[in-house]
Amino acid sequence: MAPVIEVETTGKRMEELILDVQQKIVAGLEAIDGQKFYQDRWTKGEGGYGISCVIQDGNVFEKGGVNTSIVQGVLSQDAVQRMRANHDGIDRSAKELPFFAAGISMVIHPSNPMAPTTHLNYRYFELVNSDGKKIWWFGGGADLTPSILFEEDARHFHKLHKEACDRHDPTFYPRFKKWADDYFLIKHRKETRGIGGIFFDDLSDKDPEELFAFVKDCAYTFLPSYIPIMKKRKDMEFTEDDKEFQLIRRGFYTEFNVMYDRGTWFGLQAPNPRVESILMTLPLHASWRYNYQPKGERHKALIEATHHPVEWA
Amino acid sequence: MAPVIEVETTGKRMEELILDVQQKIVAGLEAIDGQKFYQDRWTKGEGGYGISCVIQDGNVFEKGGVNTSIVQGVLSQDAVQRMRANHDGIDRSAKELPFFAAGISMVIHPSNPMAPTTHLNYRYFELVNSDGKKIWWFGGGADLTPSILFEEDARHFHKLHKEACDRHDPTFYPRFKKWADDYFLIKHRKETRGIGGIFFDDLSDKDPEELFAFVKDCAYTFLPSYIPIMKKRKDMEFTEDDKEFQLIRRGFYTEFNVMYDRGTWFGLQAPNPRVESILMTLPLHASWRYNYQPKGERHKALIEATHHPVEWA
Repeated sequence: MAPVIEVETTGKRMEELILDVQQKIVAGLEAIDGQKFYQDRWTKGEGGYGISCVIQDGNVFEKGGVNTSIVQGVLSQDAVQRMRANHDGIDRSAKELPFFAAGISMVIHPSNPMAPTTHLNYRYFELVNSDGKKIWWFGGGADLTPSILFEEDARHFHKLHKEACDRHDPTFYPRFKKWADDYFLIKHRKETRGIGGIFFDDLSDKDPEELFAFVKDCAYTFLPSYIPIMKKRKDMEFTEDDKEFQLIRRGFYTEFNVMYDRGTWFGLQAPNPRVESILMTLPLHASWRYNYQPKGERHKALIEATHHPVEWA
Repeated sequence: MAPVIEVETTGKRMEELILDVQQKIVAGLEAIDGQKFYQDRWTKGEGGYGISCVIQDGNVFEKGGVNTSIVQGVLSQDAVQRMRANHDGIDRSAKELPFFAAGISMVIHPSNPMAPTTHLNYRYFELVNSDGKKIWWFGGGADLTPSILFEEDARHFHKLHKEACDRHDPTFYPRFKKWADDYFLIKHRKETRGIGGIFFDDLSDKDPEELFAFVKDCAYTFLPSYIPIMKKRKDMEFTEDDKEFQLIRRGFYTEFNVMYDRGTWFGLQAPNPRVESILMTLPLHASWRYNYQPKGERHKALIEATHHPVEWA
């Protein structure tokens, strides 16, 4: 298959960025865990490639994955429509459109209930309309899902992401923090899956290189936003109630991911979905207990924060 | 609120039936478990009532519920549309339609991985069009979800349901067995959640009393189809691999219920969903293990049957 899209500066730079970020994140997490990630490079003919890095039954991380994919080809109009979010200017009459996509996504579930689950995703997308006009955008974000809420951790994670945002546009953090609170809502429970972070999509209202610099800054913000928290929490003592609460929250996490997460949903609708890669985000263990009532004050504090999002930064 | 629908013979008889079936099933399961179900009667003003019967951390059953609800009121056209399956003759122009619904639903998850999870649901529905014409139908079925496949159990469960079907119409079992295999498909995994049973919807092509007699027969078939299996399996020895396999299958069960089950999906979309009742069907424990590979021949046998549905009866 000949390349169907001319990948230019920003796409190439995004490809280099996510591969570098992936290896740095993996190295950073391995240093905390002591166990190596399993790395697997896959290719899709000439249509693209990716690297899956997975850890399971680690010393610190129960389960986690850091995946990259760099793909190009043609997208059916149906698939374009299914993206749903507002990508103004996309040619709705074409039967199919050439596309390029480069993205990194990560979910990490630590074993210790004192240590938070975290998720990150940054992606760059290009489509070419029938008249040759290129439509491009960035999307992504990072968020934290503690079971036990340590306010200093929430503040640290948000503060570093706010600083990354503020270096590029003072309106970004307030907009993207709110967007994360809205996006990560478990609608039927009327509460968020965690304590948020930043989330954005369809970002294309500046020069692509300016936005690339912003995304790069965010992506390199992840390790300093998470590793110091893990160092403090990974070996903390916890009770059986804490562990049970963690399993219940992981049930909620599962509900969000399979019911509401757009990436999971669209991924699984694809003709031959890579189910293992897509559902790698699900926890190793989750529980659903009828009429579960949180027992401790610190469990109630987390629930309060997932019902009423807090301004952490 | 005055009653908005004149509930006649079949509706009343269905109400009596499901309340009786519920108590008989609860008594039958309690006799196996030794622990009592927690029973809770709820009302919705004059709009209806139901009884929730729940067992958790039992001696035999890890989690299970048997719920009835008998409700009436008006349904918005939007809600009517959301039922989606083919209910020919429904007035599509009315803003809202009076309705009556009586149903029983049950999910039982035993602890022992040798013992199968099972699910049952029978329901009767009435709508009144603006011209006063009543539209009614039955829906429901029962199915078995073993982790370890015992062919004699699968044959017993199917045989008894086939006999119940055959007493009323020889075309029922082949149609409803196939319908169950299609309905309980976990689409993204291209396999069914269990080994099926019977499933039907929109059933109204005979006299209502004839169909009521069929549904009654099916509902009373549940205990003799399940209890003998439980007696054989509840105390069997099992390995750690069997337990792990059960947890993985319960992850699949969760995926089906929250992603594809119509009752769950529509239930959770309601304005003020009874989330605890709706998600009572989820297992107490479930696991997602990256690249999980079944270890034993008996685990592979179950997977074979969920990929290629078997004619058990």
